[in-house]
Amino acid sequence: MAGRRLKHWGWGYEDQAPSREELLRAAAGVREQLGFGGEIEDAVPLYRVELRKPRLKAPAGLGDLFSDDPYERVSRALGKAYRDVVRGFRGEFENPPDLVALPRDESEIEAVLSWAEAEGAAVVPFGGGTSVVGGVEPRLGDRPAVSLDLRRLDRVLEIDAESMAARIQAGATGPGLEDQLRERGLTLRHFPQSFEFSTLGGWIATRAGGHFATLYTHIDDLVESVRAITPRGTWESRRLPGSGAGPSPDRALIGSEGVLGVIAESWVRVRVRPRFKASCGVEFDDFLAAAGAVREISQAGLHPSNCRLLDALEAATTGAGSGERSLLVLGFESAHHPVEDPMAIALEIAREHGGAPGRVNVSAPPPADAGAEAKQSAVDAWRSAFLFAPYLRDTFVACGVLSETFETAITWERFEDFHASTMEAVRARVAEVCDAPADGRGTPRVSCRFTHVYPDGPAPYFTVMAPAVRGGEVEQWDEIKSAASEAVIENGGTITHHHAVGRDHRPWYDRQRPAPFAAALRAAKQELDPASILNPGVLIDP
Amino acid sequence: MAGRRLKHWGWGYEDQAPSREELLRAAAGVREQLGFGGEIEDAVPLYRVELRKPRLKAPAGLGDLFSDDPYERVSRALGKAYRDVVRGFRGEFENPPDLVALPRDESEIEAVLSWAEAEGAAVVPFGGGTSVVGGVEPRLGDRPAVSLDLRRLDRVLEIDAESMAARIQAGATGPGLEDQLRERGLTLRHFPQSFEFSTLGGWIATRAGGHFATLYTHIDDLVESVRAITPRGTWESRRLPGSGAGPSPDRALIGSEGVLGVIAESWVRVRVRPRFKASCGVEFDDFLAAAGAVREISQAGLHPSNCRLLDALEAATTGAGSGERSLLVLGFESAHHPVEDPMAIALEIAREHGGAPGRVNVSAPPPADAGAEAKQSAVDAWRSAFLFAPYLRDTFVACGVLSETFETAITWERFEDFHASTMEAVRARVAEVCDAPADGRGTPRVSCRFTHVYPDGPAPYFTVMAPAVRGGEVEQWDEIKSAASEAVIENGGTITHHHAVGRDHRPWYDRQRPAPFAAALRAAKQELDPASILNPGVLIDP
Repeated sequence: MAGRRLKHWGWGYEDQAPSREELLRAAAGVREQLGFGGEIEDAVPLYRVELRKPRLKAPAGLGDLFSDDPYERVSRALGKAYRDVVRGFRGEFENPPDLVALPRDESEIEAVLSWAEAEGAAVVPFGGGTSVVGGVEPRLGDRPAVSLDLRRLDRVLEIDAESMAARIQAGATGPGLEDQLRERGLTLRHFPQSFEFSTLGGWIATRAGGHFATLYTHIDDLVESVRAITPRGTWESRRLPGSGAGPSPDRALIGSEGVLGVIAESWVRVRVRPRFKASCGVEFDDFLAAAGAVREISQAGLHPSNCRLLDALEAATTGAGSGERSLLVLGFESAHHPVEDPMAIALEIAREHGGAPGRVNVSAPPPADAGAEAKQSAVDAWRSAFLFAPYLRDTFVACGVLSETFETAITWERFEDFHASTMEAVRARVAEVCDAPADGRGTPRVSCRFTHVYPDGPAPYFTVMAPAVRGGEVEQWDEIKSAASEAVIENGGTITHHHAVGRDHRPWYDRQRPAPFAAALRAAKQELDPASILNPGVLIDP
Repeated sequence: MAGRRLKHWGWGYEDQAPSREELLRAAAGVREQLGFGGEIEDAVPLYRVELRKPRLKAPAGLGDLFSDDPYERVSRALGKAYRDVVRGFRGEFENPPDLVALPRDESEIEAVLSWAEAEGAAVVPFGGGTSVVGGVEPRLGDRPAVSLDLRRLDRVLEIDAESMAARIQAGATGPGLEDQLRERGLTLRHFPQSFEFSTLGGWIATRAGGHFATLYTHIDDLVESVRAITPRGTWESRRLPGSGAGPSPDRALIGSEGVLGVIAESWVRVRVRPRFKASCGVEFDDFLAAAGAVREISQAGLHPSNCRLLDALEAATTGAGSGERSLLVLGFESAHHPVEDPMAIALEIAREHGGAPGRVNVSAPPPADAGAEAKQSAVDAWRSAFLFAPYLRDTFVACGVLSETFETAITWERFEDFHASTMEAVRARVAEVCDAPADGRGTPRVSCRFTHVYPDGPAPYFTVMAPAVRGGEVEQWDEIKSAASEAVIENGGTITHHHAVGRDHRPWYDRQRPAPFAAALRAAKQELDPASILNPGVLIDP
């Protein structure tokens, strides 16, 4: 939106920042609910941030493509992980880009790459900046860096309603592209938690996980073709519904996190907006019994659009449960036909595993207002909490609450042990590095939900909430994260199911991936980016 | 099966070769049905094949790993394309491997690669040898070559029934692995036309397309992890239901056609054998109207297991229709719940597009005999013809009938024009290079079916049947194939949806793929296979 600026730290727009009174009320509420958290501290305002001077000068002739404005540099210096929000809150922008480039078209992307190669500068492709893994932070020591912000490339360029696909520029945000698709009754229906600010290019670069809990949900499956600018030319695949012509070129770019090229646009598979919906919450006394129900549902070929399991603590934290029972959020949707039948089959499975379904909420055409659909749907508490969580974290930081997540995927047969040992390892580390609150009331929380499920296993997502060590938040979290990552990798999981690798996950990613694949990826990068200007340090070392 | 040998040319086992009387009867039937085809000629028997002497000698100490037996060399010298079958029939084995290696374990694969690298020999990984694109033919001029046959690595090593996955060696054939899975009530349910002889490793190396007409059907989606031997070490990915950790290592190997490493084993996603089935044939007066029905079905989220559309000529050729009307073969299946509901929705769509459904054939548990299920199912004519086609082609070759296929995929909005111009280009070239039959009765046939359909487009599969130029079959087909490939690439398709690239598709594949991707793939290969021993000439040049 013209004129509306993102906060220079934390989540959301500047005009969404709470007032001091709102913050005080929120902090009191947090203390009441969690039993920990302290007084509000103040964020360092932008004008008090001490910013390193730019080590690069915009080239003559390309001047208006670049900005060295402090706001632009600061707001592109960090991602949105807890460790980023804390540092932004404290005004610690250790690695700001020296310049921000704002290309309007592909030729300007090429110009930036050519110039950077000549200058020896690094280029960090930047979408919504919602990375939680250090993917957009130019942590490059003495090497100067440009943040290549794609926000001006934000249009839906073409819609093919017959094949159900749209050509969309990489800088289009979730709401931006959905607004443009809505005019034609279509939707990409890819709703990561970062949806409001993250971009199509970012989703592709990081293999984002979307709205659907089952079936085609990773952006990987929604991509029909990609067009990217590499230092050695344009990488454009054909629009094809399927192909067996060699290893997939698209899959080589999907997840490449900016190290092979700058994604400029993509044809993606869209769909007609759903008209038929059914949703239902199912409570379980036992989390593992609930996991058994999810396993059977995921293996039955029912393809629910939502199939998210929250453990009792997670359900309580999000206001969707009392804290006694696990909650399974089930949903089906279709643009074509009613979905009560598969819901009935799924609920039958849930009951057989000890689940107690609530009322099934059914909606059918015509929807009163397609734009308002999120508000109408069932299981509101969970959905609202999901979308509000990133906003809330800014408040947590201000009042001394550590709040962060980590996520993975694991096959079913290892899930029970994996869950037990990961929870134990993280709880133990949390106990070591988080003080017990003075009044003895609040206990640090480690909880788990499934964000996505597959026939062969779930994607467990863990949330940690604890009293922060004020002034030492980053070190405190890094200790916990390290224990979590060790547990995940030791117990057979992936270091990330949909948060990407970036710089923060590198040590564990390096242990996870096949060594010959790492060598192949490095060779591919050297071929396409011999000066290693593209997001150095992410995924591979030069 | 111990003691049972594959024919040294053409399809099937030696004991399946028809007698001269059977051949004469079959040839008369072919002439009757097609209106062309001549007298039976005799295949050149193995003992009369003049085979180039081996240019390699098995190394001391590894002797029993290698064979220079003429049968072994001849039967690994060609794939199963029409141009291969014709050459085999005529005893023309221009590029036999100098040796055939038959490793029993991974250390023996490593030994073969090390030895070949030292010798400067090429290594062609060989599964079932059913390539129809020159993928296993050592067309390498003066460079000596070893065919690395994986048939001794044919076991299901481990089954994880909880996660629905199995660890299977690369050399296991379709029936071989299904027999082993059946003991546990499971199935991979990946049934390419080559199923009887092709192998898991071959499917992965070539991105094979399977049984299902929609949804997860490419082997790409069934692979949970892969283990491959490269000249620079073992490439093994983790078993994960999903991951967002960098570009997928598995997707880099899937479709690599033996140029990056030798696939040794894989964890694949299996399923419970289906208990509920419904199938139905639907006739349409108009092929394009039928295509419209298929489009709507594929976009409705119904996920039929079968959704194959045969044009009128194709339906007639396979004995599944009169030649007047197109035939849509619809099927649904589930291991979990009845499937009449989605079938009813699909048939409603078909009717709206002018389709006339036949009787719905429903089967429910318990199946009388799981092994006999293929025989019981509906639309028998189509299925039998599908499975018998490769056998029949040997007879076609013997009696002078050109019979070959090509396939692609295209988005829906281009399908009508694509189909018209591709048919026209191929018919025109067929008319140029195929003599009108003497009695004026038979006309060369160019027909089309959909083998797979996606929400964004179909995978059209074309069949050409015409009088062969005897003795000039290869040149004749190459002319037609060249016109077909030009049309496919010019009109926006992929040079292959599931037949792979091999050596025959190279010129068109090179035009299709993004140039920077080709450079990246070449660099990756040079890193892992610096001596370029692995299947040189396939996908990329050294």
